Amino acid sequence: MNQNKNVVALDLPIPEIKDMPEDTQKYFQICQEKLGMIPNVLTAYSQNLKQLEGFTRLYNELMLGEGELSKLEREMVAVVVSSENKCYYCLVAHGAAVRVLSGDSELGEHMVMNYRSARLDTRQRAMLDFASHLTRSPATVTEEHIQALRDAGLSDRAIWDLSNLIGFYNMSNRVAIASDMQPNPEYHSQTR
Amino acid sequence: MNQNKNVVALDLPIPEIKDMPEDTQKYFQICQEKLGMIPNVLTAYSQNLKQLEGFTRLYNELMLGEGELSKLEREMVAVVVSSENKCYYCLVAHGAAVRVLSGDSELGEHMVMNYRSARLDTRQRAMLDFASHLTRSPATVTEEHIQALRDAGLSDRAIWDLSNLIGFYNMSNRVAIASDMQPNPEYHSQTR
Amino acid sequence: MNQNKNVVALDLPIPEIKDMPEDTQKYFQICQEKLGMIPNVLTAYSQNLKQLEGFTRLYNELMLGEGELSKLEREMVAVVVSSENKCYYCLVAHGAAVRVLSGDSELGEHMVMNYRSARLDTRQRAMLDFASHLTRSPATVTEEHIQALRDAGLSDRAIWDLSNLIGFYNMSNRVAIASDMQPNPEYHSQTR
Amino acid sequence: MNQNKNVVALDLPIPEIKDMPEDTQKYFQICQEKLGMIPNVLTAYSQNLKQLEGFTRLYNELMLGEGELSKLEREMVAVVVSSENKCYYCLVAHGAAVRVLSGDSELGEHMVMNYRSARLDTRQRAMLDFASHLTRSPATVTEEHIQALRDAGLSDRAIWDLSNLIGFYNMSNRVAIASDMQPNPEYHSQTR
Amino acid sequence: MNQNKNVVALDLPIPEIKDMPEDTQKYFQICQEKLGMIPNVLTAYSQNLKQLEGFTRLYNELMLGEGELSKLEREMVAVVVSSENKCYYCLVAHGAAVRVLSGDSELGEHMVMNYRSARLDTRQRAMLDFASHLTRSPATVTEEHIQALRDAGLSDRAIWDLSNLIGFYNMSNRVAIASDMQPNPEYHSQTR
Amino acid sequence: MNQNKNVVALDLPIPEIKDMPEDTQKYFQICQEKLGMIPNVLTAYSQNLKQLEGFTRLYNELMLGEGELSKLEREMVAVVVSSENKCYYCLVAHGAAVRVLSGDSELGEHMVMNYRSARLDTRQRAMLDFASHLTRSPATVTEEHIQALRDAGLSDRAIWDLSNLIGFYNMSNRVAIASDMQPNPEYHSQTR
Repeated sequence: MNQNKNVVALDLPIPEIKDMPEDTQKYFQICQEKLGMIPNVLTAYSQNLKQLEGFTRLYNELMLGEGELSKLEREMVAVVVSSENKCYYCLVAHGAAVRVLSGDSELGEHMVMNYRSARLDTRQRAMLDFASHLTRSPATVTEEHIQALRDAGLSDRAIWDLSNLIGFYNMSNRVAIASDMQPNPEYHSQTR
Repeated sequence: MNQNKNVVALDLPIPEIKDMPEDTQKYFQICQEKLGMIPNVLTAYSQNLKQLEGFTRLYNELMLGEGELSKLEREMVAVVVSSENKCYYCLVAHGAAVRVLSGDSELGEHMVMNYRSARLDTRQRAMLDFASHLTRSPATVTEEHIQALRDAGLSDRAIWDLSNLIGFYNMSNRVAIASDMQPNPEYHSQTR
Repeated sequence: MNQNKNVVALDLPIPEIKDMPEDTQKYFQICQEKLGMIPNVLTAYSQNLKQLEGFTRLYNELMLGEGELSKLEREMVAVVVSSENKCYYCLVAHGAAVRVLSGDSELGEHMVMNYRSARLDTRQRAMLDFASHLTRSPATVTEEHIQALRDAGLSDRAIWDLSNLIGFYNMSNRVAIASDMQPNPEYHSQTR
Repeated sequence: MNQNKNVVALDLPIPEIKDMPEDTQKYFQICQEKLGMIPNVLTAYSQNLKQLEGFTRLYNELMLGEGELSKLEREMVAVVVSSENKCYYCLVAHGAAVRVLSGDSELGEHMVMNYRSARLDTRQRAMLDFASHLTRSPATVTEEHIQALRDAGLSDRAIWDLSNLIGFYNMSNRVAIASDMQPNPEYHSQTR
Repeated sequence: MNQNKNVVALDLPIPEIKDMPEDTQKYFQICQEKLGMIPNVLTAYSQNLKQLEGFTRLYNELMLGEGELSKLEREMVAVVVSSENKCYYCLVAHGAAVRVLSGDSELGEHMVMNYRSARLDTRQRAMLDFASHLTRSPATVTEEHIQALRDAGLSDRAIWDLSNLIGFYNMSNRVAIASDMQPNPEYHSQTR
Repeated sequence: MNQNKNVVALDLPIPEIKDMPEDTQKYFQICQEKLGMIPNVLTAYSQNLKQLEGFTRLYNELMLGEGELSKLEREMVAVVVSSENKCYYCLVAHGAAVRVLSGDSELGEHMVMNYRSARLDTRQRAMLDFASHLTRSPATVTEEHIQALRDAGLSDRAIWDLSNLIGFYNMSNRVAIASDMQPNPEYHSQTR
């Protein structure tokens, strides 16, 4: 029987934390200390430590690495992509992050519900319009949409990072939806 | 001026190979030896070595790691996702891989053009139907579609891996399209 | 200048409450007492008292009148329709109502984000699947979808009421989106 | 057995006219005298007199009340919305109204079939483009589409009324489709 | 200046009838006698007699040749395809043909507005469902949809003819829309 | 049993070549000599010689007749339409034609996979954008899209021819998909 129904609906061989390699245990301990929980997405990936490693390295660089986009903006992109794809896990987790980082609970709701209803500056609006377009209809994205980002002030490097972010949540939305991943309950009450 | 127009249309600070860290140089050398080229996707990511590291670790585990899906099936999934998203780079690169791994150039064409026209067994058809659905309309994927995969013989672990694969190409399709990434010309003539 | 930007983005001749007819004042007073606010949708409609009258009579009967659907279920339908249409005003206002009526803040989030991720009984699932279908693609709804509701236990009268509810939010979503209607800030913190 | 199959396919407790309250009887009598029939939508709603009251009050104000849009233009909007949603009842009833009010049977056909093929002035074209957009894709309507209406000469109040009209037919289309409502046969031959 | 604005909006070198080759003149004369008009689609094609020849030969065989589908059914298919594509010219011309051939003006309206609202037998419903599907989403048509037609009683040869009919109107809808082709006014009043 | 499974999946009374009328035999012989094969689409149509006659006359005039569009451009249009509709037969056959006529195998791949990734001049880009639009969403094509073609240098007559080409492949894509038509194997290796 699947003992991980509170993590994912798939029956995966998720190990006990005590049976994980030492550095994974350490990573999970840091999560517990910093976030007050181990995000279920990490628990789910722990059934395959190489996948976990690749996923967390890419995640950490895209969300926390150096770059032109602020951490709040990256979370806003995460939520807008997840809103187009209607991914419950990511909307709960990253909606909370937008609330926490901005201290503005309504901004989080706007991103979850429809970013077009928020009052945003031109640059953020351009970023989120691109996130929506590249998510909904990648086949029709062309040079002119890239130029619109440049016109809004993004450097080519920022456009690369933005595209990677949009891509990343198009990946994790699909993994979370297919596995019916459940967000940790702690997210719901953050910065309400 | 962008000197990497044959890699991506974005102006990225892609380093000379000789200026890369030693282990990246070694990795690229292995590519050159095994594949006869360094895939442009890796060259593009080399402008940010942490992104490159995360991307390649995840890629290598999902495409080459242990698992229930054969390497050919993983490439078939890559092409079907890329066909729904109409990503030129990935269709060229992974279409070639399907031709090479199967020794069947027409199978590669079917995956690129419309997998529904190919003669496939029930299990592969179920995998590709799911790849198409999770790509086109993630919001409407539910338990019943997962059950269809189980009914076709996939274990829950294989469903997790499959979902990750589908997710991965939904990520890289978007990165390649947004950056107008060019496939290495070597792909075109493989197994024709 | 539009003094009602906190209600709608359109420049409408919204009267002061003291200038409204007596029975409208009374109605607004009841709202204030029962809900702790006058919902902005009512303030917006007050610029045309006949529209207000028609709207509130229809609203009150559909949401509060006798019928087979519980008040919570009606609010769940309101939110699912609004989620398909991505209407910020209605998602905030009726998302709050789902939280308040159910005492379950996560149920409200599920309805806002993707009802398909919630654990629902067959009857509620059938109701919400129908709400989604009749909202997204009315042209393709046929007898077989009605029969699915009957099979899930709804009477024909309940199906009529349900269809009216779905229709009602397809109306008010569009009015709220077109006028950029702002939800009262009180909603955000209810039952978090 | 359902004795109202010529009205709706749902089994609703529609009363005999003689058993209705006096003012409803009077209202239906006026319809009979003015229109030569009692529209089936009213007969259907008569199974719940409070719904009937709300529906007719809103309908009468939106379609017949004071306002910037002519009665013909309101009917044109009704038909364009119904054409996007493919609602047989509303296309027959309001297509007839366009023919009658304009005395131009071909204009009615254009609205039913594709308003884009009609020769229209800029203002009417803008109104109908907005009706189509707000019907098909409410989530993507933003300030710029409202501005296009202002540029075409509509006041903010007219935009509010127009949005309500579009909303109203998005409601009644769905009620009519879900209940398989049949138009009165009298409509078909009007102004041919 | 374009003297053919009552035929198409494109400036095409449409010849005078007296300047056409003899057999075209004869063909147009037969149209005039049998139909009381020369359909504008033929006038438009007369600017390229080889196109006209190919078009009319294919049309005549598909619409009037031997086959399992009745002439009325072929016209029903023509209208359903044209309704999905919203082609004004074809809806007017073939909607009239359905009315004339069936003597049932409401059947014509159902086909124009939404065939799903008509009372049809299983075989005709299957034919029209297929016409709608193959028109809206050819990429997703597979063996199972063909089998549904066989199950409804169509022979493989009838399926071939049906597919050709659906294809033919997907061609002529696009030609008529792109050239803004105007239907002859005579169609409007036929069998009302 | 169907002996033509290598041509179509439908059981059609395709005659032996020796039993065909003399001029069809001659036509097929010319194909064999010029192309090295008889394209399966012609074999399939040979079960109804009048359909074959209409189809080939129209095809020959549209693809090979006098006109402003080069033969290569016509094939590019054929492939772009077929790519939107995901028709395996037409993508294989006309993708090969693009490779052969251009001597550029990558151009063929661009057209099959996503024409937006190709480096094209403004005129060709406008033609293919129109081909994509008229294929995907004929209902929304209006005068402004025709004007864009004129602005890119096409005459009205070329726009008529282009629309016919786009229409023609929207027809034959649907016939080929519905009948599961198999491309002749010779196409695959042409100009690789």
